[in-house]
Amino acid sequence: MKKAIYPGSFDPVTVGHMDVIRRASAHCDALTVLVMTNIDKKSVFTAEERVGFLKKALEAEGLGRVQVDFYGGLLADYARDTGATAIVKGLRAVSDFEYEFQMALINRHLYPGAETVFFMADERHLYISSSVVRSVGRHGGDISGLISPAILDDVARKLRMETNG
Amino acid sequence: MKKAIYPGSFDPVTVGHMDVIRRASAHCDALTVLVMTNIDKKSVFTAEERVGFLKKALEAEGLGRVQVDFYGGLLADYARDTGATAIVKGLRAVSDFEYEFQMALINRHLYPGAETVFFMADERHLYISSSVVRSVGRHGGDISGLISPAILDDVARKLRMETNG
Amino acid sequence: MKKAIYPGSFDPVTVGHMDVIRRASAHCDALTVLVMTNIDKKSVFTAEERVGFLKKALEAEGLGRVQVDFYGGLLADYARDTGATAIVKGLRAVSDFEYEFQMALINRHLYPGAETVFFMADERHLYISSSVVRSVGRHGGDISGLISPAILDDVARKLRMETNG
Amino acid sequence: MKKAIYPGSFDPVTVGHMDVIRRASAHCDALTVLVMTNIDKKSVFTAEERVGFLKKALEAEGLGRVQVDFYGGLLADYARDTGATAIVKGLRAVSDFEYEFQMALINRHLYPGAETVFFMADERHLYISSSVVRSVGRHGGDISGLISPAILDDVARKLRMETNG
Amino acid sequence: MKKAIYPGSFDPVTVGHMDVIRRASAHCDALTVLVMTNIDKKSVFTAEERVGFLKKALEAEGLGRVQVDFYGGLLADYARDTGATAIVKGLRAVSDFEYEFQMALINRHLYPGAETVFFMADERHLYISSSVVRSVGRHGGDISGLISPAILDDVARKLRMETNG
Amino acid sequence: MKKAIYPGSFDPVTVGHMDVIRRASAHCDALTVLVMTNIDKKSVFTAEERVGFLKKALEAEGLGRVQVDFYGGLLADYARDTGATAIVKGLRAVSDFEYEFQMALINRHLYPGAETVFFMADERHLYISSSVVRSVGRHGGDISGLISPAILDDVARKLRMETNG
Repeated sequence: MKKAIYPGSFDPVTVGHMDVIRRASAHCDALTVLVMTNIDKKSVFTAEERVGFLKKALEAEGLGRVQVDFYGGLLADYARDTGATAIVKGLRAVSDFEYEFQMALINRHLYPGAETVFFMADERHLYISSSVVRSVGRHGGDISGLISPAILDDVARKLRMETNG
Repeated sequence: MKKAIYPGSFDPVTVGHMDVIRRASAHCDALTVLVMTNIDKKSVFTAEERVGFLKKALEAEGLGRVQVDFYGGLLADYARDTGATAIVKGLRAVSDFEYEFQMALINRHLYPGAETVFFMADERHLYISSSVVRSVGRHGGDISGLISPAILDDVARKLRMETNG
Repeated sequence: MKKAIYPGSFDPVTVGHMDVIRRASAHCDALTVLVMTNIDKKSVFTAEERVGFLKKALEAEGLGRVQVDFYGGLLADYARDTGATAIVKGLRAVSDFEYEFQMALINRHLYPGAETVFFMADERHLYISSSVVRSVGRHGGDISGLISPAILDDVARKLRMETNG
Repeated sequence: MKKAIYPGSFDPVTVGHMDVIRRASAHCDALTVLVMTNIDKKSVFTAEERVGFLKKALEAEGLGRVQVDFYGGLLADYARDTGATAIVKGLRAVSDFEYEFQMALINRHLYPGAETVFFMADERHLYISSSVVRSVGRHGGDISGLISPAILDDVARKLRMETNG
Repeated sequence: MKKAIYPGSFDPVTVGHMDVIRRASAHCDALTVLVMTNIDKKSVFTAEERVGFLKKALEAEGLGRVQVDFYGGLLADYARDTGATAIVKGLRAVSDFEYEFQMALINRHLYPGAETVFFMADERHLYISSSVVRSVGRHGGDISGLISPAILDDVARKLRMETNG
Repeated sequence: MKKAIYPGSFDPVTVGHMDVIRRASAHCDALTVLVMTNIDKKSVFTAEERVGFLKKALEAEGLGRVQVDFYGGLLADYARDTGATAIVKGLRAVSDFEYEFQMALINRHLYPGAETVFFMADERHLYISSSVVRSVGRHGGDISGLISPAILDDVARKLRMETNG
């Protein structure tokens, strides 16, 4: 794959996301992790924080050549504008699959120039999602092992503040 | 089927809905598309707008004999009150199926007089849902092909206004 | 629905099949239960036995107006030849749904004139299938409650003979 | 199982929950039904009401030896603090299963000392959930058969008030 | 659970099965692993071999108190005859779940005295099944890590012989 | 992706397979379609026929640079021996996904050097599989549109002969 995008809300980025990035980047000439917004669901971390966490974690894990960007519009428009040829997604479960299947079809309808390509998550990360990280962190639970050590303190502090604030 | 109801929120009606209406109406003596409210989820279009879009699209596509109605209560009550013998639903995916399976069982429990009957969506419409239309439209993307041409301008204008307003 | 077909292998017919027949027949002008063969899977009961069980059970349960037929070819060809406008299927579970979804699409491809329409099984019959009947009966287990009383003795005897023979 | 916890939001407790409690309690030395909060989803009934409904229903159905408790933190922490050896969950459908699978894996990660054990709901309760009870009750529909007779009036009154208030 | 049965074909027993046995045995007063036959599917290993592998693996892994038995009839009959109060099954995936759901319902219908109870497989064993072991072993692939070290040589030799024989 | 393998039984190759090949080949430096055998399931077409159909269809559709090979052993061994870095699979449905998920995990266990990468089938091909082609062709149904025009006559003739022979 020449130029690929890995889109998501990354609220925050987990070790599962990092695993998909590592796998995908080995098969792409260029990979951009794209932080997006979801009109229907308010994020816990700001776009700036989410981009910052990604950059810090990628740097710390030797994936500094992977780009990070933010876009508030449609994925298909970003792909067309940047000349992307592939959209990367990770799959963990059947429910993921159905949703991603629909998303891939709509993106193909809006912009056929970028092919959606799926990578399988590591089986040790099957249960890890941003919402699990948020839920454990808000209750002061231990989120090490769920997110990159490089951003552990920042994420944990913000999640605890949110609950107390 | 003598008297059938096709319930939904139709927020807004898509070409997938129109396809189910066309298939079902060929097998019913009378078909009513029933716009309903969902207490847990605020609709983007008002009940009046959703009913209006349906009427306009049905008229334009030669399905004028299909009735449109609105009801704020339980589907089972509406079915009993109007003497409906069938409830029509479209199926696109496994996740649809599980939800509709539960709804069919609860409706059978509340009013056994109306049988839930499922029609299969066209495979070209598998990825089309009201939420996809809203998401693409809000970002100024092209929603032609996703909804009836008769209501294209009205729907696109309102979705753009919502984002800018 | 004017003229509907309910196809299957009915090896043998279960109370779940009878339930779908009863529901569907209330919504059709004419319904034919079509016994078919599956090239890849040898049936335990002969085509004659399977047709005979259906006729006996339908008669006994007051559904004598439902026709029974046998066809060794493609469902789409039978539907075209007999002028059927609908194909009826029962749904019990997610795995049923995926298979039936594919079958409905291939039948629509081969003959668009007949619409596949799904009815939901009674929740008390969710676990009942011909293969469960065969498995319990072969071990001399009690299959009453799983098949129509009218054919209980004939089915039980044949299944026991098969194991001993 | 020596000491088991059955966690949930019980908003309100349904006959499906009561069925799982009855099944599980026959296999445990001690069972605690644990009312929890969900940060992302506001409950309709207060924690006190939910605990009260459970106590009243358990008493009325001869399950008085089952304990009821409330906890606002992480299930894994409660299990560790109380020395629980098992977490009980009921399964009704495929979508339940995927979610519960992920929850069981995260709880095993956070506290390996408690094993998640699943019981199968009665097939007559497949369509019954707290959200179905709330939806039917809010529209003044008949919720008898969906919740324990002991709490029927209290639940129905509160749901009707909520809609009118 | 007082007296539990863990039924299967165990053709051959895998590390995934051993993991479920270990988890379940910690919650049962007595556990019997029951080797069964499947009329529709010929096993690769004989009943004697399958029982022998189980005994050897259980002994080697310190689970010698778990019993092993063989039964050629219906599980429900065995459960009734031996006074079992629970049937243990492991779950790895959605497709497992649907099948086991049906089996649990039919067993409950045939003998309500034994409750089916599910344990979740370790996520590191998600992809391990007897059929994967057979397929890898027949091609001379490395099956260590997939089955207990105690039976590795015996299983590998037989699978290689089968291919060459 | 540098060097990718697209494995399958291709009994026979369908337009769905050809679509996946076309999509994948645009993202690979080199792609080999690998015809494999399935010990548990006898193929209808011989390995030579299946390889021949693939070569003819690829040539006719301008995909002549894609290689075709046959291997009777384990995919992981072939991948290791040929230095492949990716295994390509197409996804059509939830049931595909679960099976392929397991296969990807076992292949990763046996040979971590090749990443399994999934491409989404065109929605117009969702219902097309080799088994559908065989079933329609054996009954003399029209299989044009289901397989490449280049091999239509050869496949149709053999399937008709099989039924009559």
